Amino acid sequence: MKGVAVELGVKDPSVRRTGVNRGVAVIDFILRIIAITATLASAIAMGTTDETLPFFTQFIRFRAKYDDLPMFTFFVVANSIASAYLVLSLALSIFHIIKSGAQNSRVVLIFFDAGMLALVSAGASAAAAIVYLAHKGNTRTNWFAICQQFNSFCERISGSLIGSFVAMVVLILLILLSAAALSRRY
Amino acid sequence: MKGVAVELGVKDPSVRRTGVNRGVAVIDFILRIIAITATLASAIAMGTTDETLPFFTQFIRFRAKYDDLPMFTFFVVANSIASAYLVLSLALSIFHIIKSGAQNSRVVLIFFDAGMLALVSAGASAAAAIVYLAHKGNTRTNWFAICQQFNSFCERISGSLIGSFVAMVVLILLILLSAAALSRRY
Repeated sequence: MKGVAVELGVKDPSVRRTGVNRGVAVIDFILRIIAITATLASAIAMGTTDETLPFFTQFIRFRAKYDDLPMFTFFVVANSIASAYLVLSLALSIFHIIKSGAQNSRVVLIFFDAGMLALVSAGASAAAAIVYLAHKGNTRTNWFAICQQFNSFCERISGSLIGSFVAMVVLILLILLSAAALSRRY
Repeated sequence: MKGVAVELGVKDPSVRRTGVNRGVAVIDFILRIIAITATLASAIAMGTTDETLPFFTQFIRFRAKYDDLPMFTFFVVANSIASAYLVLSLALSIFHIIKSGAQNSRVVLIFFDAGMLALVSAGASAAAAIVYLAHKGNTRTNWFAICQQFNSFCERISGSLIGSFVAMVVLILLILLSAAALSRRY
């Protein structure tokens, strides 16, 4: 009877929890792949934005490139760093699928995920602020909208924000998943 | 001898870990107070920014207010929300000081802390992008620096960013602390 009690009381839930944590680790892995795609797409879409208008004067060709504005450069850099980090973090994610009882590595992941969340949000938000100005302008400061002239440039920079915002949501979910996995451990 | 073994092997580390987790909970509480102060200071400093220039024409008074730019309004709103959330989270923080073995409440805290981290970063970064433009302008888009005219306005909006960036760092630390507390639990 003692043996049965031990089996029911200790071994069984432990096995169940390991199974759940393995499932969480697999979801973690998939979410990281999504986040890598999203940040990489954002960085590439923004980093290749370059529009030259078909008309020009004797001295000036009208051209808009993403690095005319430092916030867009920051956006590309932030998304590239986040993407590189996420690729590296896949190694730990696979480690968690194999060894689902791991704890310290999860704490490390939560910390860096939080850092990357702050970085990606900052990049996305700085770029979004400029995209807003480019579309609407601001009369009080005499900053005029430039999207009338640079149409495809504006479409491109607006579109490239999407990936970053997707990555923000995914990173918050990743932090939640790691925290849930930590709390489920024996 | 069996009793001694139980005391050494099970009870003692558990008591020690409870003590460490209580210490972590106290640090968590203090960090939250700091974050509340920082976000509240940012929101108030930005929200009360208003400069009227001493000269005016017949029709126009030159005036700069924070809500001339929607990004500054967002900054104030984001910091106010974060501040309100942090005040509410103090309740859970105190609960963790009393009951340091709690786990689900810590997962909830990590999730919302991550959300607030994204919100505060977004607000700080959008405002920083505009502060940068106000100081430096941008020749490619013909957005001129406005800080030559609105001197004290510019100083105020620059200064109010500090609190937000402090809050970002504190929130990352809070997430790390909660994760560490979760991993230390038996």
